[in-house]
Amino acid sequence: MGTNILILSAGTRNKVVQYFKREMAGRVIATDCSNLGPAIYDADKAYIVPRIDDPAYLDEVLKICKKEEIKGVLSLIDPELSLLAKNADRFLEIGTTPIVSSYELCETSLDKFRMYDMLQKLGIPTARCFASIESFEASRADGEIDYPIFVKPQKGSASLNINEVRSKEMLTALFHDYDGLMIQEYMKGQEYGADVYIDMITGMCTSIFLKKKIKMRAGETDKSVSCKCDTLFMKLANFVEAVGYRGMIDIDLFYDEDNDTWYLSEVNPRFGGGYPHAYECGVNFPRQIINNLEGKENLVNIGDYRDGVFMMKYNELMVEPEDRLAR
Amino acid sequence: MGTNILILSAGTRNKVVQYFKREMAGRVIATDCSNLGPAIYDADKAYIVPRIDDPAYLDEVLKICKKEEIKGVLSLIDPELSLLAKNADRFLEIGTTPIVSSYELCETSLDKFRMYDMLQKLGIPTARCFASIESFEASRADGEIDYPIFVKPQKGSASLNINEVRSKEMLTALFHDYDGLMIQEYMKGQEYGADVYIDMITGMCTSIFLKKKIKMRAGETDKSVSCKCDTLFMKLANFVEAVGYRGMIDIDLFYDEDNDTWYLSEVNPRFGGGYPHAYECGVNFPRQIINNLEGKENLVNIGDYRDGVFMMKYNELMVEPEDRLAR
Repeated sequence: MGTNILILSAGTRNKVVQYFKREMAGRVIATDCSNLGPAIYDADKAYIVPRIDDPAYLDEVLKICKKEEIKGVLSLIDPELSLLAKNADRFLEIGTTPIVSSYELCETSLDKFRMYDMLQKLGIPTARCFASIESFEASRADGEIDYPIFVKPQKGSASLNINEVRSKEMLTALFHDYDGLMIQEYMKGQEYGADVYIDMITGMCTSIFLKKKIKMRAGETDKSVSCKCDTLFMKLANFVEAVGYRGMIDIDLFYDEDNDTWYLSEVNPRFGGGYPHAYECGVNFPRQIINNLEGKENLVNIGDYRDGVFMMKYNELMVEPEDRLAR
Repeated sequence: MGTNILILSAGTRNKVVQYFKREMAGRVIATDCSNLGPAIYDADKAYIVPRIDDPAYLDEVLKICKKEEIKGVLSLIDPELSLLAKNADRFLEIGTTPIVSSYELCETSLDKFRMYDMLQKLGIPTARCFASIESFEASRADGEIDYPIFVKPQKGSASLNINEVRSKEMLTALFHDYDGLMIQEYMKGQEYGADVYIDMITGMCTSIFLKKKIKMRAGETDKSVSCKCDTLFMKLANFVEAVGYRGMIDIDLFYDEDNDTWYLSEVNPRFGGGYPHAYECGVNFPRQIINNLEGKENLVNIGDYRDGVFMMKYNELMVEPEDRLAR
């Protein structure tokens, strides 16, 4: 029997589905709550499931895992990571391994304030955070920070698209119109992203792929170039091993040339939207996942790719008549 | 000799390049000012050119047209349309036809206020526009309009991503931070898009493809479904023929069910970002363009496609090492 994989909330992440299929380890099953998520049509079989906040959701997923003899399950969206981690035992009972970090670590990673606290305690440079206009203004009065700043929702992804705020007028208006916002120090450096794999058996960091972000669009990396930095690799490996991440994670970074410092800005404990760049350069996480599911440890092989390789995204499309949509 | 096509500012529009190649009429050449525009790598030949506001730009493009024996030239970006239209004679002199509407019509279409005036005069329903907070507030005091509203740059595309403004605080902050803004009535109806072809020889509207927009992302249609409406088709054909558009254009519409009214919100006199949906449903503009360039008229064939066909976009990527990038 093959190593069957279940990809939850596949959405528009067709490339991740395609990459797992290319490994030919077993069948690749994908789910989405909408039959207009194109990635499910690239899988061997698609299931339309309830929304993740529906009480029936988890049982539905467990039923699919049992029926399709799923060896490993992963999700492509943030709000589902904690759900998988919290219910890991129920999956393991039926022979399915959730490919995800611990519940505590998922919760911390997806809350910008808890993450800020953790990084502060570990002494890892990161952007300063403020929960209110008052605390920001106090720090500004002390000359510690000034506009421009970032304003973001504290949790979850933003419908809000204004990132750089350059005036008190805009700051006040945003806090007037939206709830749950926070203020973050504006990072002046160059943005980078790292795709990192932490072996699920040994807990060792086995792969790091570093890319310089050249152009962003709607919060996603549109163009990037592969690069390497051994001192950063060491720092990242130490960090992810110390904190205990597992499987594939995505790390956002800033590098400030003026003081030669790497700032860690965010960790998404799942496949990042820019992971295809890493895969196309030979950094193969689906293979490592399948190895782990088959009981094989992966060897540490950090930085094993070519630098100076450029990635450019463009739109592909899938067209399906109504009567051929998944049900 | 084939009907060679030059696609300017190809950017990330790989599908348009691919569709022209599929017609196999001749060679397809593409340009961009950056060697990180993925679409140029799908062309038979790529040229890296200066930016369109560079004084040397036009001569460079004319040189390419001559050298590559280009029969038809088109651009995929708004700010270049007027440039092509204004210099049509210089292209025609060397045997190249710019596939674009007249200079006046390009200028009107890309200025939201001039467009608003034109539509008002033609009696075509459209969203009300205000140039200043004062004129909006005056109308609001009269009970004619209220929040939410759209705030957009009057010309050109926005770096600004806040569309729906729901408070005076946010409105004031936006006008404080940004120049050249305007206020537009918030359209409550369902968004639609129409891909329209107007024969360059006869001036007749030959094709209309209508799609209901299901999901937007960063100002682009992410999911849509094909549909038909004969009364709208008639209105659109009359409008584009009366005003004198030529070639492929993209029209944004709202349909308000409450008063059974179609509102025209915008015309982009170029291939729309959602055109691939039309092409995949058999509405073939590259073929019609090539026919026109070869002196053949296209027959009127409006609404010749299947409705209920869903389109879903996802990210494809191109990966090139530095030494293989175009120069």
